[in-house]
Amino acid sequence: MQSQVGSEQILFTRGVPALEALPNQLLATCLQAILEGPQGRAVLQYGHNGGYLPLRQLLGEQYAVAADQIVIGNGSLHLQDMLAAVLVKPGDVVLTEQPSYDRAIKTFRRRGAQVIGIPLEHDGVDLNALERALARKIPAFMYVIPDFQNPSGITTSAAKRQALVTLAERHGFWLVEDIPYRTLRYSGESLPLLRDISPERVLAVSSYSKLISPGLRVGYLIGPPHLIKQLTGLTEETILMPTLPTEAAVVEFHKRGYFATNLGHLRQLYAPRLQAMIKALKTYLPDIPFAEPEGGFFVSITLPEQADGANLLARAQAVGLALTDGTAFFADPLDEERQHVGERFVRLPFCALTPVQIEEGVQRLATLI
Amino acid sequence: MQSQVGSEQILFTRGVPALEALPNQLLATCLQAILEGPQGRAVLQYGHNGGYLPLRQLLGEQYAVAADQIVIGNGSLHLQDMLAAVLVKPGDVVLTEQPSYDRAIKTFRRRGAQVIGIPLEHDGVDLNALERALARKIPAFMYVIPDFQNPSGITTSAAKRQALVTLAERHGFWLVEDIPYRTLRYSGESLPLLRDISPERVLAVSSYSKLISPGLRVGYLIGPPHLIKQLTGLTEETILMPTLPTEAAVVEFHKRGYFATNLGHLRQLYAPRLQAMIKALKTYLPDIPFAEPEGGFFVSITLPEQADGANLLARAQAVGLALTDGTAFFADPLDEERQHVGERFVRLPFCALTPVQIEEGVQRLATLI
Repeated sequence: MQSQVGSEQILFTRGVPALEALPNQLLATCLQAILEGPQGRAVLQYGHNGGYLPLRQLLGEQYAVAADQIVIGNGSLHLQDMLAAVLVKPGDVVLTEQPSYDRAIKTFRRRGAQVIGIPLEHDGVDLNALERALARKIPAFMYVIPDFQNPSGITTSAAKRQALVTLAERHGFWLVEDIPYRTLRYSGESLPLLRDISPERVLAVSSYSKLISPGLRVGYLIGPPHLIKQLTGLTEETILMPTLPTEAAVVEFHKRGYFATNLGHLRQLYAPRLQAMIKALKTYLPDIPFAEPEGGFFVSITLPEQADGANLLARAQAVGLALTDGTAFFADPLDEERQHVGERFVRLPFCALTPVQIEEGVQRLATLI
Repeated sequence: MQSQVGSEQILFTRGVPALEALPNQLLATCLQAILEGPQGRAVLQYGHNGGYLPLRQLLGEQYAVAADQIVIGNGSLHLQDMLAAVLVKPGDVVLTEQPSYDRAIKTFRRRGAQVIGIPLEHDGVDLNALERALARKIPAFMYVIPDFQNPSGITTSAAKRQALVTLAERHGFWLVEDIPYRTLRYSGESLPLLRDISPERVLAVSSYSKLISPGLRVGYLIGPPHLIKQLTGLTEETILMPTLPTEAAVVEFHKRGYFATNLGHLRQLYAPRLQAMIKALKTYLPDIPFAEPEGGFFVSITLPEQADGANLLARAQAVGLALTDGTAFFADPLDEERQHVGERFVRLPFCALTPVQIEEGVQRLATLI
């Protein structure tokens, strides 16, 4: 394979969509239709501070909630920041899966939370560890990515979804489920949303970054009206409002049937890339177990303790492989002995790489261990 | 005039552009060119976290600074929020003009600042009051809107610009100049930017909301590279990045020469509205002095103490006139006796009203006093 990809660097770094999957022509059509249509000037004016109303209505239909249960933000990270600003009081704990999305951990910390990671198992968090954490302190919220988790690729099982909700209801804390990858399922069946199990205790956050385009900056949060009102107020005080033309483009993208077509294309493009990743790992790193995702952007492995994990990033760079520092995905550990597991954690995003690049990348990774 | 505008409500509330002035066709052309051009997919991808590089380069040329001295945000309020997050430490004071932009006051307070207003005179802040405030405590920064101030319409004189910078240099605090209206000058000559006098002590904030469209959400801040780096980092941690297609549309809008043409149209549309406001005030409220702006969005008046200012908003509503609560523009007053001046302050935005509506509105206002 070396001959086909030559000496180019392989980027196992960020979870970005494939550039060729970004629907620039379709979005040009949508934006033109919006700007030349009856809302052409309204989407250029001030207004719609909680998010473009037709988009909130569309989402309301999809999630079977009223428009006042939805707030739109400049991507989902923005909403996580707003949420932490509203929910986290000094001294509060926020729980995350361990590993979890590095930017979310950083954001919750910056808003004053002590972020504690609950170890992930192949089917979701370790419930015993979660109960131990809850016995110490009830968190302001627990942040989970139940479908095709970032960075692990793990999907929380139906049983653990129910268990999480039961614990949240019993102890009275919010579950924040981040579901940007959920629709990108390449095989198997979707499990219930946490918010389908308990709309009273769950806040769902998602975005169009993985389903249409990150550059549009359109994310949304679903929750009870009183909290949405607070978040809308804070969003208004910080960014005034999210970008209206791109929100309107998302609505037009749905109305014209582009969303379904585009989603089909994404699945067709990404499914073979996931398969290539799974096959390469089994071929070149046969002794390392890993969870096989049925969708999303990531597969991950944890190198065995006896593997040579020292200076992994630098050694990877030397063989033309860019890796993300695994420790960034690890919040404060509940147990001391898990302190250094992040150094051996490797996230492997596959969507923006061809099957050939994926095989070559895993082959290079195997030489380092 | 009553017959021409009938019983419609006249909105002297928000400083928004005229809907008919929003260039929807031109922006449709720009967005199509961008999305179908060589950057079509790049502007839909992740990246450009400090703001779309070609836009920072364009602004760099305009302001004669390097691109690393500019950060783009989701509108200028967003950048004011980021700036306060970086500069304000617990217990810090922020100075503003009094009155000042209500959302900025609120944003600085939410980030923990004690906001103190320095009374505005017809040519800028009262320098004696400023010196008294500085003798008490040096602020984290002083926020000023030197051109066609919101809400007063006042422009700071050349002498006071120099005095502000001299004080900032002597006492070592930042001057934040917010200049969204500066280019909307309908007569007279521009005075120097504060940052032209002292680029080391001044941070300039502006946006395209008044010059192209608020819905695009494109604002920018100019400052020294080390501070821009901090702001870029925090922006990345909170919204990841501003919306790329609308930033790229702003660049295309300039490249095609639309910016200059559009600015000419705005001046042609707004100048007679300003004249109508000035004429109406002189006709129907001849005893109330006010500063006559040469540009921007606002004229303002302060009702005399003996005027009936009680329940002004409710009484205005009753005659079909929507007014903004003047007290929101007043930060903590330095002097006790100025405590209630905000209740008599009336902001009169004129850009989104026709000359007929403006005359009718002022006529109605006069009946209340």
